Amino acid sequence: MTFGKQYDEYLSFFEGELKRFCAEMDYRPPVLCESMRYSLLSGGKRVRPVLFFGALAHFGGDYTKEAGLAIALECIHTYSLIHDDLPAMDNDDFRRGNPSNHRVFGEANAILAGDALLSEGMCLLLKEGKKSERHLRAAQYLADAAGAKGMIAGQSADLLYTGKTGGEEELGFIYAHKTGKLITAPIVMAAILCGGDEEKAEKFGEALGTLFQLTDDILDVKGESAKMGKTLGKDREEDKLTCVKVYGMERAELLADRTAANCHAHLRALGGDGFLASLVDLVRTRDN
Amino acid sequence: MTFGKQYDEYLSFFEGELKRFCAEMDYRPPVLCESMRYSLLSGGKRVRPVLFFGALAHFGGDYTKEAGLAIALECIHTYSLIHDDLPAMDNDDFRRGNPSNHRVFGEANAILAGDALLSEGMCLLLKEGKKSERHLRAAQYLADAAGAKGMIAGQSADLLYTGKTGGEEELGFIYAHKTGKLITAPIVMAAILCGGDEEKAEKFGEALGTLFQLTDDILDVKGESAKMGKTLGKDREEDKLTCVKVYGMERAELLADRTAANCHAHLRALGGDGFLASLVDLVRTRDN
Repeated sequence: MTFGKQYDEYLSFFEGELKRFCAEMDYRPPVLCESMRYSLLSGGKRVRPVLFFGALAHFGGDYTKEAGLAIALECIHTYSLIHDDLPAMDNDDFRRGNPSNHRVFGEANAILAGDALLSEGMCLLLKEGKKSERHLRAAQYLADAAGAKGMIAGQSADLLYTGKTGGEEELGFIYAHKTGKLITAPIVMAAILCGGDEEKAEKFGEALGTLFQLTDDILDVKGESAKMGKTLGKDREEDKLTCVKVYGMERAELLADRTAANCHAHLRALGGDGFLASLVDLVRTRDN
Repeated sequence: MTFGKQYDEYLSFFEGELKRFCAEMDYRPPVLCESMRYSLLSGGKRVRPVLFFGALAHFGGDYTKEAGLAIALECIHTYSLIHDDLPAMDNDDFRRGNPSNHRVFGEANAILAGDALLSEGMCLLLKEGKKSERHLRAAQYLADAAGAKGMIAGQSADLLYTGKTGGEEELGFIYAHKTGKLITAPIVMAAILCGGDEEKAEKFGEALGTLFQLTDDILDVKGESAKMGKTLGKDREEDKLTCVKVYGMERAELLADRTAANCHAHLRALGGDGFLASLVDLVRTRDN
């Protein structure tokens, strides 16, 4: 199967499961459910669930059995976007081509929608954790990755270094945490569930997370906002610590190429893989 | 042992464990850990952990073994206070007698401190859930109680009915969710862990949750802000849906008395208990 077809297969399976999950959100008050659904169903490339499914297939697992963990992953990712877009945080009016959550539902509802998606993600992890010891360990890995030592530490550092001087070390911390943790998690979770090499999976995930944020920073300067679905040029405007600020565009692009090569090397150590290798190339060459 | 001495024993055990938990928060960036610690260690009556310990003792359990779940409970409660105090939400400048989290650390850091405490609470639940099947079930009960169908639904309804007309039914929904869920959880968790009667525990918890919010609404009108450690009179100013608004003060007081009697009846159905009965009386007669 071609890469594109495989991606679509994973994506359409995930979208179907996610729609089913959202259809069950019919409790009170309606505004809470609506605001959660609005952000969950606003599309996006679903990189993390697709990565999880691709890694499961790589390690010999059956991805159709792990929709619960994939939805938990997307709930947690989506909550982080809603809170990140808030006026007190990055103050973004657009996300995935649509008005951001607080622009539609107001700040208070957006804070609660984020809290609710984080909570529901964690509830799903506890539910999935009941299936087996491996599931509980995979769930714990994701929860830790999203937590105070993980993604949130990265968000906090991102705020801390905005408008300040900072170099390679600080940038590396932001990359590894803000983006890296939730890109690494699906790969390591797949290894845990299938008995794969967790350490090598983690190394591959960390490299891919770095690549993802490098290209994100580069696209904030060079991308087209219509394709990206959000306002661009904001990093420079707000003086964010990005690879473009630290290295300049030319060296940032070289670094992205080197990091992509690094991803492929780590992937070969994991036994190589057609789908995951193409996913690395997609992350490097994407325009959205 | 007298009620006061027993309360102090639970409290001092809990404070010791919580301090140890906070001492391990020494990761990057410091501002994240500081803001989490600031709110976690700002005192308060620790009603939920004490209630959990009292209920464990009632059902024949050993409370000193369940510090992890008690800390998870307090992390989740504390996150809800931090987010509730935000300018976009209730806009409260004081909490537990100190400036609220966003007044000290700024809005963005307060949002992240709340996210981090919710996440760390959930991480603790997954960790505790590994101990036994009963622990996992108790952890799941708390996660659900805090989630989108639980406490957050109550917060959302509280916002929704602010400045609007609403009656007994709407008030009941807010009470049962915003406050009731996290008061009921420690009692049911204790029943789950010790093999007690979960249904009766839930009934008692729901009545106690209602009593807690009734007295909270009453104290917002009649209390002393120095004792309460927060600005009072805000419910009326913001036209919140409270028992005083729906019933008037006189009938609200009568309802609180009837609800306290109701708590005692449910407690008798659970086999009666000196400590928990005194805790009911404390909730009814408290001035803070």
